[in-house]
Amino acid sequence: MSASASAPDFQKTELIPVIAQDDATGDVLMLAYMNHEAYEETLKTGRVVYYSRSRKKLWRKGEESGNVQELKSLWFDCDADTLLVRVNQIGGAACHEGYRSCFFRKIDPTSGAISVVGSRVFDPQAVYGKK
Amino acid sequence: MSASASAPDFQKTELIPVIAQDDATGDVLMLAYMNHEAYEETLKTGRVVYYSRSRKKLWRKGEESGNVQELKSLWFDCDADTLLVRVNQIGGAACHEGYRSCFFRKIDPTSGAISVVGSRVFDPQAVYGKK
Repeated sequence: MSASASAPDFQKTELIPVIAQDDATGDVLMLAYMNHEAYEETLKTGRVVYYSRSRKKLWRKGEESGNVQELKSLWFDCDADTLLVRVNQIGGAACHEGYRSCFFRKIDPTSGAISVVGSRVFDPQAVYGKK
Repeated sequence: MSASASAPDFQKTELIPVIAQDDATGDVLMLAYMNHEAYEETLKTGRVVYYSRSRKKLWRKGEESGNVQELKSLWFDCDADTLLVRVNQIGGAACHEGYRSCFFRKIDPTSGAISVVGSRVFDPQAVYGKK
């Protein structure tokens, strides 16, 4: 596609992957998906809305935990099939496990060992109840 | 999944989305995919290898342009279905259009206007030939 691309292409694929990045720190917080409706609502409201593939419906991020994502800027890639949202993450944690970022597990390339980096910002059981 | 997850889960999905982030600047460079073979080769060689969905084969990033990605660290998310690679981007540009990042188009949420942010690091025609 040319540099004149004018929008993410929901014709090409119904669900577009969305990278959420903390606008203040640059940390990558999570990957989720938007359909066209989620995208439109995100632009309109300034709060990030995804489409939940498991629940098959709009997912207004933070609707249960209160940890909403305020949209700071929105970008799309050269193929118009991926979005990047830079956000202000309310509550300081994007991950449902209570971590700031969903990417809190690091793999050692040589040994394959996993280390957890970072600590919990909130207790998932207190926020979501026992599961 | 529990906090004891030990690896990205290629059983769940054959192709796992991979976010590439510049380790020095924190810029999100691109989104691509890995299959298990690409993942194993990335760990083994320390150079990032993707799986090209269009070409249906391993894509050793930079094999044509020389702009390889040296692996600095590797992370997986709470659902074990997305990877984050922090890289040293050789050549300073990840995008085949010559930009540092594939996310060089910004959308104004109110007007929908697109602006191109950043300038080309290389001329795609000089690197890849005319297309």
